[in-house]
Amino acid sequence: MSPANTMKESLPTTLCFSIQDKVGGLENCLAALKSMSISLTRIESRPSRTKDWDYDFFVDFNAEDDKQVQNVVQQLRKHTQDVCVIGAENTGDSVAWFPRKLTDLDTFAEKVMEMGEELSSDHPGAQDPVYRARRADITRIAKTYRTGQSIPKIDYTDEENATWGQVYRRLTSMYTTHACREHQYVFPLLVQNCGYSDQGIPQIEDISRFLKDCTGFTLRPVMGLLSSRDFLNAFAFRVFYSTQYIRHSSKPFYTPEPDCCHELLGHVPLFADPDFADFSQEIGLASLGASDEDIEKLATIFWFTVEFGLCRQEGEVKAYGAGLLSSFGELEYCLSDKPELRPFDPAKTALQKYPITEFQPVYFVADSFKDAQEKVRDFAANSMNRPFSVRYNALTQTIEVLDNKDKVLRFARSIRDDMKTLTNVLETLS
Amino acid sequence: MSPANTMKESLPTTLCFSIQDKVGGLENCLAALKSMSISLTRIESRPSRTKDWDYDFFVDFNAEDDKQVQNVVQQLRKHTQDVCVIGAENTGDSVAWFPRKLTDLDTFAEKVMEMGEELSSDHPGAQDPVYRARRADITRIAKTYRTGQSIPKIDYTDEENATWGQVYRRLTSMYTTHACREHQYVFPLLVQNCGYSDQGIPQIEDISRFLKDCTGFTLRPVMGLLSSRDFLNAFAFRVFYSTQYIRHSSKPFYTPEPDCCHELLGHVPLFADPDFADFSQEIGLASLGASDEDIEKLATIFWFTVEFGLCRQEGEVKAYGAGLLSSFGELEYCLSDKPELRPFDPAKTALQKYPITEFQPVYFVADSFKDAQEKVRDFAANSMNRPFSVRYNALTQTIEVLDNKDKVLRFARSIRDDMKTLTNVLETLS
Amino acid sequence: MSPANTMKESLPTTLCFSIQDKVGGLENCLAALKSMSISLTRIESRPSRTKDWDYDFFVDFNAEDDKQVQNVVQQLRKHTQDVCVIGAENTGDSVAWFPRKLTDLDTFAEKVMEMGEELSSDHPGAQDPVYRARRADITRIAKTYRTGQSIPKIDYTDEENATWGQVYRRLTSMYTTHACREHQYVFPLLVQNCGYSDQGIPQIEDISRFLKDCTGFTLRPVMGLLSSRDFLNAFAFRVFYSTQYIRHSSKPFYTPEPDCCHELLGHVPLFADPDFADFSQEIGLASLGASDEDIEKLATIFWFTVEFGLCRQEGEVKAYGAGLLSSFGELEYCLSDKPELRPFDPAKTALQKYPITEFQPVYFVADSFKDAQEKVRDFAANSMNRPFSVRYNALTQTIEVLDNKDKVLRFARSIRDDMKTLTNVLETLS
Amino acid sequence: MSPANTMKESLPTTLCFSIQDKVGGLENCLAALKSMSISLTRIESRPSRTKDWDYDFFVDFNAEDDKQVQNVVQQLRKHTQDVCVIGAENTGDSVAWFPRKLTDLDTFAEKVMEMGEELSSDHPGAQDPVYRARRADITRIAKTYRTGQSIPKIDYTDEENATWGQVYRRLTSMYTTHACREHQYVFPLLVQNCGYSDQGIPQIEDISRFLKDCTGFTLRPVMGLLSSRDFLNAFAFRVFYSTQYIRHSSKPFYTPEPDCCHELLGHVPLFADPDFADFSQEIGLASLGASDEDIEKLATIFWFTVEFGLCRQEGEVKAYGAGLLSSFGELEYCLSDKPELRPFDPAKTALQKYPITEFQPVYFVADSFKDAQEKVRDFAANSMNRPFSVRYNALTQTIEVLDNKDKVLRFARSIRDDMKTLTNVLETLS
Repeated sequence: MSPANTMKESLPTTLCFSIQDKVGGLENCLAALKSMSISLTRIESRPSRTKDWDYDFFVDFNAEDDKQVQNVVQQLRKHTQDVCVIGAENTGDSVAWFPRKLTDLDTFAEKVMEMGEELSSDHPGAQDPVYRARRADITRIAKTYRTGQSIPKIDYTDEENATWGQVYRRLTSMYTTHACREHQYVFPLLVQNCGYSDQGIPQIEDISRFLKDCTGFTLRPVMGLLSSRDFLNAFAFRVFYSTQYIRHSSKPFYTPEPDCCHELLGHVPLFADPDFADFSQEIGLASLGASDEDIEKLATIFWFTVEFGLCRQEGEVKAYGAGLLSSFGELEYCLSDKPELRPFDPAKTALQKYPITEFQPVYFVADSFKDAQEKVRDFAANSMNRPFSVRYNALTQTIEVLDNKDKVLRFARSIRDDMKTLTNVLETLS
Repeated sequence: MSPANTMKESLPTTLCFSIQDKVGGLENCLAALKSMSISLTRIESRPSRTKDWDYDFFVDFNAEDDKQVQNVVQQLRKHTQDVCVIGAENTGDSVAWFPRKLTDLDTFAEKVMEMGEELSSDHPGAQDPVYRARRADITRIAKTYRTGQSIPKIDYTDEENATWGQVYRRLTSMYTTHACREHQYVFPLLVQNCGYSDQGIPQIEDISRFLKDCTGFTLRPVMGLLSSRDFLNAFAFRVFYSTQYIRHSSKPFYTPEPDCCHELLGHVPLFADPDFADFSQEIGLASLGASDEDIEKLATIFWFTVEFGLCRQEGEVKAYGAGLLSSFGELEYCLSDKPELRPFDPAKTALQKYPITEFQPVYFVADSFKDAQEKVRDFAANSMNRPFSVRYNALTQTIEVLDNKDKVLRFARSIRDDMKTLTNVLETLS
Repeated sequence: MSPANTMKESLPTTLCFSIQDKVGGLENCLAALKSMSISLTRIESRPSRTKDWDYDFFVDFNAEDDKQVQNVVQQLRKHTQDVCVIGAENTGDSVAWFPRKLTDLDTFAEKVMEMGEELSSDHPGAQDPVYRARRADITRIAKTYRTGQSIPKIDYTDEENATWGQVYRRLTSMYTTHACREHQYVFPLLVQNCGYSDQGIPQIEDISRFLKDCTGFTLRPVMGLLSSRDFLNAFAFRVFYSTQYIRHSSKPFYTPEPDCCHELLGHVPLFADPDFADFSQEIGLASLGASDEDIEKLATIFWFTVEFGLCRQEGEVKAYGAGLLSSFGELEYCLSDKPELRPFDPAKTALQKYPITEFQPVYFVADSFKDAQEKVRDFAANSMNRPFSVRYNALTQTIEVLDNKDKVLRFARSIRDDMKTLTNVLETLS
Repeated sequence: MSPANTMKESLPTTLCFSIQDKVGGLENCLAALKSMSISLTRIESRPSRTKDWDYDFFVDFNAEDDKQVQNVVQQLRKHTQDVCVIGAENTGDSVAWFPRKLTDLDTFAEKVMEMGEELSSDHPGAQDPVYRARRADITRIAKTYRTGQSIPKIDYTDEENATWGQVYRRLTSMYTTHACREHQYVFPLLVQNCGYSDQGIPQIEDISRFLKDCTGFTLRPVMGLLSSRDFLNAFAFRVFYSTQYIRHSSKPFYTPEPDCCHELLGHVPLFADPDFADFSQEIGLASLGASDEDIEKLATIFWFTVEFGLCRQEGEVKAYGAGLLSSFGELEYCLSDKPELRPFDPAKTALQKYPITEFQPVYFVADSFKDAQEKVRDFAANSMNRPFSVRYNALTQTIEVLDNKDKVLRFARSIRDDMKTLTNVLETLS
């Protein structure tokens, strides 16, 4: 999947606030919430991550307008001082809504930009009712999928498998010379563990489990193009939205939208690499609650790295972007002397214009994924206007917003404990 | 659930080894494995966590005897030098088998020590065929449950809910005076989010999701008593084995085995506390691959903390052990002047004898869970004979054995990156 | 040297404040200071450790009374908002004066409690005019010594050397059985590098250079007993105040005050041990700006560790306190079954009463110096009422008060950089 | 001072080895050393930084030839296994000699490349016997100066002070527009604290004390040009070799060699900046024991940064190199549109050729000193062939070679302890 660039229609609103631990406090607050005339979609109370004995509330509702949000906040002020509003209009104190926990991604399930159910006119399958019905059948999985479930396996048709086989054979013949080291290294593991072969399309459930073991990345089915914000936000959780359908059999080497050839041959191998996984998540973390302007910059960085990135390895330039590794034409072109190559530098890359329907005139070359990750981190820390820092807590699969001393302190303590473990390890190491 | 102390019957064997990344290497090794006459239960190849371009193999099989293991190892030596054997006889180089990834816990599913299907003669339900049938019904869930699935909800009978209600009312009336601060703090959250009330038994799926949000702990259904090793090993993954059935209605304030009253009222609230969760996992990590002797020490430490621990809070002694918090009799007794109180000190606690069927004559008092965690960590690092250190990777839900430079280096880098994040956070903090 | 327990007469006052970097700002502020009618002893302006482009001023003067201090502060408020007062009356916002840089120790030079020039009546040399003249001669060195200078060598008389020889032979014969491992380990190095022998008193300049190489500790000559505060404060800089004179030759095995036998045989060997050096400095850091009450606690901890501490080593109790290692009588007694031994626990040790003129009835036993250091650090962090944290910057030989975000950030960055170095090192390590 | 590029004539040899702590071990080893027919210049035994109870020996001697070194090593092998040879011929296992402790710098005192006593023919003072005598007079201070001493003050003549005044006025008029922010920020502090003015040459003792407070840098007098290796090595200790004499009065705006105008106006202000100090020390640390080839690269990096560096500040390019800040001609030129500006990149900068007697055609522009430091550190870690890592221990003023597990472990522990302090600080911070 690639990110798209259109605007959101309506945003869910999340309220976060803390109340003091006093007798009946939790219940009174819950009662107050329920008595408001708003369509609540979630009420959760949790131990506070801030002060030791406070409680945190997380309340989701679909706001009618900004005024309603103001109203709800005002009523809550009777119970607590600091009510944080996430989402709705990007005005005043509020920041853009973003998922706080893995299950929050379930709210994206049906939000697709285009091609969710309608195909654009230039799609080779646009006039083929059988193809369109089949595609709709497959995307139904994405529509109903929820976090934690196994992804249903698809019984691909012979025609679909044959299309896959053609693409598979053509591309794999080029990887040893054109793909980066990491891609080549992981590919045989996908063959051995996830059923990659030219005989048929592998199942994303198998791939997702494999990636989970390697780097903690997981795949999640998607109906079509998501907004850049939704798509990038998921990377903060090491989640990659993957389509499951395949391009039209009439044009096996062309597709105007992401399909399983693009995802499984282009994207998947890289997500098994720890440094690339870190790099991808870094972009995701930077995107949480970012301004629309910053989202566009991050989407551009994503485009020139995860989709169309080149890297230098032992003196030679190689491809690691999925858009290249899933297109034999551009894979050949990108390593020729025709395009312009520039060193990857987030501040500059973020501003580069690019065409969507042609080969890229400019590529950016990274030194290493680790180096690229650090550069993106520094870019996010220095150039973006977000007034808070975030951190992914893999234990709870939640995003921690490090916006006060207590949370920072808890983070510092975890580093201290890790340092203690490290010294213990060094002691036992012979 | 409490750990039991009997011996394992037969152990699965895991082989870990790495092979170099060369053309056809993976396939040749796989072919060799398949040609051996052993009953393989898993073959996985993965990116190496050691050298950048090696592959790791993980092979599980049920060995007939030690000789067969030797034989397999010898054959593998043609492909690779270092074959690590985990499990089988605890002889020579091999260490006791332990789970490396979360799904490895599925292999414990049917391994129960006693009371799995047969009840001991002193069990109040031993002569009640209806009770026994109901209990067997419920434990079937544990038998078939696999990692990643939702835990089926149980439609408890009115009689079961009534028994729960009696216990619930009696115990909750004592918590404000006898339970530690953490227990009291979390309890209202369980009422609000997980359906705790005197009206009926809450569902462990709801509780498990709640705990996951709080500390990353999850519950997993179990048929009955596990071996100490299996039970403790699961804590390394922040997994707690919980029974779902309830005691016999004829004796609502007595049960010779763990039941849902013990688990949900005694254990669960504490696992929502970050420091207690860290403490519990620390014991679990120490138990991985430990010698039988060390397992016994850790089980004793577990007994005197998670089951029967006391702690000092603002000058007063309070209970945090689940065995106390689920027994109104011992909860009253433990804070009286009858038992002897000693400061918690893992080296001494680990050697203390204890009765199973009576109130404890001796309790150990912790200063704080954080302090207790550090003490257990130091104890494990200094007093146990394990020739390696382990670390839980929450992203991949796997155990990393830090037994060589590359892994230690990767760990050090992750700390360095965390330090970079921390300084970035401090920069943005106003 | 041991700390004494009397009160200070008059305190120097230090003002710290920052001004903004604007044209002429520094000069105007300096002019204002000079125009005040106060007896300035230091004016320093330095780059700010806080905000990048502020300037810090450090001004020392001898205040007549508290009112004068208030007055000066008021006048400075025209130039800057936050004026921090260190010293003077321990009232209001001000904390007890403490040295901020190594050269600040020069202000203690003549501040001795007693026995500086007058000997108490029970001193064996009190009636010996020759002894008293010689002692005065030697202490003149301490009076004029300034930071950075070499400590003048003393040409000890045959009588002095003979007294030393008697003590030396008697004590060294007991060390192999009674002294801790660290003392025994360092002693031969002092023989080889610093001229320790029974032939004559070694020179503290040689010893100071040796200690500097080992742990960064240095010796500084002193006239007699300092106040506990002054004595302990110096440890924050790894400076130990050492007398240079020797006890009266009529009683070679007795002295009511510290002398070079006590310092060089008792104290010095331990300061060559990195963990003991860290431990000693920890007490020093805790003493900076502490309340009088806390100083007394720290002096008591010092008494029961650095002066009269025991430790457990490979199952046996050994002496590491200088008061023991320089007294053959108490050295024998302390390891006998007569005194009571308790585990070292700062919170309890700090409150223990003790006799000064007899053998101790109670000793405290440490597990290790590293462990003792951590306990003192935790004690200082949790039990003392100091509203700031300090850190010794060895590069600049100054104390950094970590009382705001910028300083903490700088500290965090230095840890991050160290982590970077550590990972680089692990990479190169074979 | 600037580094020069010629070769060393003869190198001292240092042997480092450890012996076990056993009765008489130290003495036997010392006796063996003394019985060898070599001209020993130092024998020190110290507590081992490696294994807890070993002793380290450091032995300096002037070897006649490589064979003699081999011979000595062979004899020592009777006492110890690992003898490390530092210096002598750069052959086999041995690495180039480098200072291990601050006092080792005393061995450079008389080692100057040129212009130590003879002036080159193009020197404006070459034909002026009075000037030459005065210069010789001043350099005598450098010849006899030893670590720890105060640097003697010089009573500059009116003529010397007048020359200084001319240079001072001309350059200071340009700083507000041409010098980097750090230089402008520190300059008023030098005026206020160190006697900078157009009335006379300040004393380097005063400046050295000021720098010590700011960043731990100190100045040390030098007779003339040192070899690049010796000059850079000193930076590892934060020591800067500074000349004390001044250029010939006949040409106040020209000098072919460093003089006090260059040092005090160009170099000194930057050494008061913490990040610049870190950056400079980083180059010094990288130079310790480096190959001749790597020394040349580091000297080139030094040339293009500390001597002729530019940096970007708030969109504008400014000068921070001392060669620029002490030459009004090149200071004007470097910010004009004539020279070529390239981004600072150690790998490329290290290979750039440069003229010594003309304005530079190419300058390198740094983003920040912190960034430049990290780049140099990465360059040293990745591109240099040194088989060990080093670290400066500011407490003991020694270089620690992190070449084995024990030392790395000790380093890791110190980071852990710092992390503990940091979390304590965060706890107290309001």
